[in-house]
Amino acid sequence: MINTTGNPDRRNFIKTSAALTTGFLGLNGFQSLEAHHISLGDNLFVIGPIEGYSPQIGTLVSMLNYNRQTIIDTVKSLTMEQLDYLHDPSANTIGALILHLGATDKFYQINTFEGRQEFNKAEKKIWEVPMNLGDEGRKKIRGQEVKYYLDMINEVRQKTIEELKKKDDQWLLAIDPEWSKERPLNTYWKWFHVCEHESNHRGQMTWLKSRLPGAKPGKD
Amino acid sequence: MINTTGNPDRRNFIKTSAALTTGFLGLNGFQSLEAHHISLGDNLFVIGPIEGYSPQIGTLVSMLNYNRQTIIDTVKSLTMEQLDYLHDPSANTIGALILHLGATDKFYQINTFEGRQEFNKAEKKIWEVPMNLGDEGRKKIRGQEVKYYLDMINEVRQKTIEELKKKDDQWLLAIDPEWSKERPLNTYWKWFHVCEHESNHRGQMTWLKSRLPGAKPGKD
Repeated sequence: MINTTGNPDRRNFIKTSAALTTGFLGLNGFQSLEAHHISLGDNLFVIGPIEGYSPQIGTLVSMLNYNRQTIIDTVKSLTMEQLDYLHDPSANTIGALILHLGATDKFYQINTFEGRQEFNKAEKKIWEVPMNLGDEGRKKIRGQEVKYYLDMINEVRQKTIEELKKKDDQWLLAIDPEWSKERPLNTYWKWFHVCEHESNHRGQMTWLKSRLPGAKPGKD
Repeated sequence: MINTTGNPDRRNFIKTSAALTTGFLGLNGFQSLEAHHISLGDNLFVIGPIEGYSPQIGTLVSMLNYNRQTIIDTVKSLTMEQLDYLHDPSANTIGALILHLGATDKFYQINTFEGRQEFNKAEKKIWEVPMNLGDEGRKKIRGQEVKYYLDMINEVRQKTIEELKKKDDQWLLAIDPEWSKERPLNTYWKWFHVCEHESNHRGQMTWLKSRLPGAKPGKD
């Protein structure tokens, strides 16, 4: 897949993006998308304003959608055993990394939509372990099928998109005084970070995936 | 660093972003930034339109700048030996991954600014190996200090920024018919991909960095 390998060789590009397209328009992919309530239509590779959102928010949403689809595409065929695979004692499993994306999304949700700096008790119970990963994560996040992980992160993302729809560019560009004591930092940085953070961990997921027992070596 | 570990715990955030700020405003960091001709000012954590660029292009440039700084920050203290470290026979070295970012930037440059689908002979000589990685990359990309890698990718990036400054949002949003035979794909996707592709490989760099001989185990 071009975004994972980063190889924009024209022939590879056609092949891999066709595979990606087939992946989410084909029967299995389509069912999986339906199951995860993400309706990306045909515009996954079009970044920019989206009808129904303010211009910069629409652009951000198109980025979140694209990146999320690359995550789904990377993990959707993995078995429970593969999701639980621990490459070395300080590694995270792919399952834990998926849930970590949901925790990050959730944190920036409560921060930017509700102005809170910390999870409440109920949120901590669900998200603290995947947020922090490490030993607790290795111990507690396991024994689930991929649908569990994707449903968890999709539920959070649905809320993010709904809330972003209500906001405007002024909100997105606003500096957060609370987070700007060292240097200015704005809401757009927070959500861009949620987005690029998914790419960061996708790089690790593909690395781990190509090293699963029995896997063909990948390019990473 | 928040974007690398993805942990937005408030206290960690302050600590790590302060470290990042010190990192590029402190003497060494500043020299390193000067050496790489990147003048990010104080606005690294402000994503959005930038004076002198059309609104969506400015936003993209702010993203490219932020992501690139996280790469510099991840690798700038590594020795040649660490940049050459091969974790397993199918891994890439961190040095090769840095150069791979430059190759990707260069490819989208010749594609979006010049309408070419392939590197020319001179470009291939420099960029084909880092673009493709694999065995050739493992054999040929080694024995350089970090300054070599950062100078290489910075020279490309400078050109990207100069060219983006001349373009407008209409150019950025335009669908590329040549790449849209399967489904629509626009210029913004191409440059967003260059950007998020750096995060993808940063995830691998931090993973490898925390496994360098003698390194403390990280969170990844």
